Amino acid sequence: MNTNTIHTDLCIIGAGPVGLFAVFEAGLLKMRCHLIDALPQVGGQLSEIYPQKPIYDIPGYPEVKAQDLVDNLMEQAKPFQPTFTLGERVDHLDKQADGSYVVTTSDKTHVHCKVVIIAGGLGCFEPRKPVLTNLEEFEGKGINYMVKNPETYRDKNVVIAGGGDSALDWTIFLAKVAKKVTLVHRNETFRGAPDSASKVFDLANNGKIDLILSANLKEVNGNGKLEKVILEDKWKQDLSIDADYLIPLFGLSPKLGPIADWGLSIDKNAIEVDTRDYSTGVERIYAIGDINTYPGKLKLILCGFHEAAIMMHSAFKYVYPDQKLSFKYTTVNGVNAF
Amino acid sequence: MNTNTIHTDLCIIGAGPVGLFAVFEAGLLKMRCHLIDALPQVGGQLSEIYPQKPIYDIPGYPEVKAQDLVDNLMEQAKPFQPTFTLGERVDHLDKQADGSYVVTTSDKTHVHCKVVIIAGGLGCFEPRKPVLTNLEEFEGKGINYMVKNPETYRDKNVVIAGGGDSALDWTIFLAKVAKKVTLVHRNETFRGAPDSASKVFDLANNGKIDLILSANLKEVNGNGKLEKVILEDKWKQDLSIDADYLIPLFGLSPKLGPIADWGLSIDKNAIEVDTRDYSTGVERIYAIGDINTYPGKLKLILCGFHEAAIMMHSAFKYVYPDQKLSFKYTTVNGVNAF
Ligand SMILES: Cc1cc2nc3c(=O)[nH]c(=O)nc-3n(C[C@H](O)[C@H](O)[C@H](O)COP(=O)(O)OP(=O)(O)OC[C@H]3O[C@@H](n4cnc5c(N)ncnc54)[C@H](O)[C@@H]3O)c2cc1C
Ligand SMILES: Cc1cc2nc3c(=O)[nH]c(=O)nc-3n(C[C@H](O)[C@H](O)[C@H](O)COP(=O)(O)OP(=O)(O)OC[C@H]3O[C@@H](n4cnc5c(N)ncnc54)[C@H](O)[C@@H]3O)c2cc1C
Repeated sequence: MNTNTIHTDLCIIGAGPVGLFAVFEAGLLKMRCHLIDALPQVGGQLSEIYPQKPIYDIPGYPEVKAQDLVDNLMEQAKPFQPTFTLGERVDHLDKQADGSYVVTTSDKTHVHCKVVIIAGGLGCFEPRKPVLTNLEEFEGKGINYMVKNPETYRDKNVVIAGGGDSALDWTIFLAKVAKKVTLVHRNETFRGAPDSASKVFDLANNGKIDLILSANLKEVNGNGKLEKVILEDKWKQDLSIDADYLIPLFGLSPKLGPIADWGLSIDKNAIEVDTRDYSTGVERIYAIGDINTYPGKLKLILCGFHEAAIMMHSAFKYVYPDQKLSFKYTTVNGVNAF
Repeated sequence: MNTNTIHTDLCIIGAGPVGLFAVFEAGLLKMRCHLIDALPQVGGQLSEIYPQKPIYDIPGYPEVKAQDLVDNLMEQAKPFQPTFTLGERVDHLDKQADGSYVVTTSDKTHVHCKVVIIAGGLGCFEPRKPVLTNLEEFEGKGINYMVKNPETYRDKNVVIAGGGDSALDWTIFLAKVAKKVTLVHRNETFRGAPDSASKVFDLANNGKIDLILSANLKEVNGNGKLEKVILEDKWKQDLSIDADYLIPLFGLSPKLGPIADWGLSIDKNAIEVDTRDYSTGVERIYAIGDINTYPGKLKLILCGFHEAAIMMHSAFKYVYPDQKLSFKYTTVNGVNAF
């Protein structure tokens, strides 16, 4: 085991709404959680795909904005001090001699835990990539598909490509941080929020950014790391731009990814579970939320909440093998923070 | 079938949090609901037992007062215009030749429906009754165990007995409505909220009500209807009070009641269901919330919400036998009111 290993009771893979609520249910039973998500922020589909949209079927909320629900779930989990590894994909689960697990991420973070909870939704969000011949050569060497830490870009030359909300929002944000931001988009109009689009046009008019419309990425060059991005503009002319970084933001689409390789029983991209406790059939591994399937399953947030509550009452035995779980109402017992 | 029969798609027995949320889930699938509850108000245990207490484990609510949750659930159900019969107990379910059901209450209200959903919680709240020899003679003829409609008591002589919140609250309320209110309590201090108790003492000091402490109900008399309530005071003296009404408010305790007689499979006062759709084994009868049981069951509000959502997708076939249910997210599809 790595010396930098994180130790916890439960490792939750996926910090979507269901993973977040699982922290609260675990906390009521005095179990600690570490969460890992491939995305740089929590909230899963809600924060990534529809943060500003209203949801109408969260019980007790006639209407709630997706991002507000995520914020409330974070607030609810807070007394139990969950810890997070964000922007890293879980690649491996390794069973230890004593039955516990070591979970390993794409960046070689290790988490040692008594129970693994897969709350992976539709899977890892994988970036849609531009089709460029030598793209892979520069991945992680100047080409990034998501902004994990804006400080990376301080005083650098950054090219952002895309026309949706992420491209617009990061252009606006990085305009204040980077040496120079160039936004490249293949159309003349943006898919993102009109409000953000007009901010971007203002920045361009005031010379704060370079805006290149109706242009496509054509080539990336450099010596060991990215140095130049070549575009083809609307007159089919090549345009070379000095760039320390290229951030293509063409959207993310979920892929089951490594989860498929963990020896679990998979049906239609979802993990088959036992509805008595949402266990996977492999001891100490549970699956809750959109990632699981069973007869009657609905991929709804409220169903994942129920699964999280039931599941925790089963996982308790692995964390406290000598204790009897006693069930108490929060109204009667309160929420006893760690 | 009675001419006064109410016709609806789904009849929900129990208007607790789970019955209320079921209305919303039914509405998304274009099914109409009529709810029946033995209590005079909606909200089940939340409104009856702990309306002012905070609940901490409703997902997305770090804290919510029980009555506020009920109010929000009513608001959420509103676009689907549920109808209600309150203050009546469901006594019978009668299967019709075409498979539909007629549901009949204690007050002979008839509801004709395609599907019956039992969301009866811990059962009917039955009043704790004083031990008086000829009590039953006057039940409904002057003796009431709950206040359904305060107007019943306008300009009448009313005796209220009890020391909890209901006794205090109704004393305060009816003081403005009745000709005279006498509050009888067997102790010198009240169990109810100190605030309400001090209001009651004020009313007594100002001659707005009669307050008789350390006294017990001893006898009820009348000719066909209640006329006199006899108390025994702290000096063991009898005290006769003119009374059109006696309202003993000694608390309510839930009893499974008639639900036990409907031919369903019952285990430890709960109805056994199939977790694929929370059906009871008797066609067209479902059970959700605290009233059901299955391996792993937790009597939590959030579990009842999940059960309601899943159940409705199964009930759909009885209401729309020729249609295929298509599953849509509320965020995408909105909530289309009736
Ligand atoms: C447009 C839209 C509208 C919707 N509207 C509604 C609605 O109105 N009501 C409703 O109930 N539902 C709605 N949904 C569905 C709802 O968003 C999902 O049910 C919910 O997000 C599931 O939550 P989750 O926590 O299970 O998974 P997700 O939200 O998908 O989160 C899973 C997380 O796991 C991470 N992950 C996966 N694999 C790995 C790995 N190997 N390593 C690290 N991290 C990993 C992912 O990055 C992701 O962040 C909607 C969905 C969409 C797309
Ligand atoms: C003090 C206390 C604290 C609690 N704290 C929490 C908490 O923190 N978190 C949590 O999740 N849960 C908590 N609970 C449990 C929670 O209240 C129940 O899970 C919830 O009320 C169940 O909802 P329900 O709709 O299934 O049933 P109920 O709320 O019990 O409602 C059922 C309704 O059905 C009616 N009914 C039954 N039979 C009939 C009939 N034959 N005819 C007509 N009407 C009928 C009853 O009158 C009742 O109104 C607590 C309970 C108590 C008592």
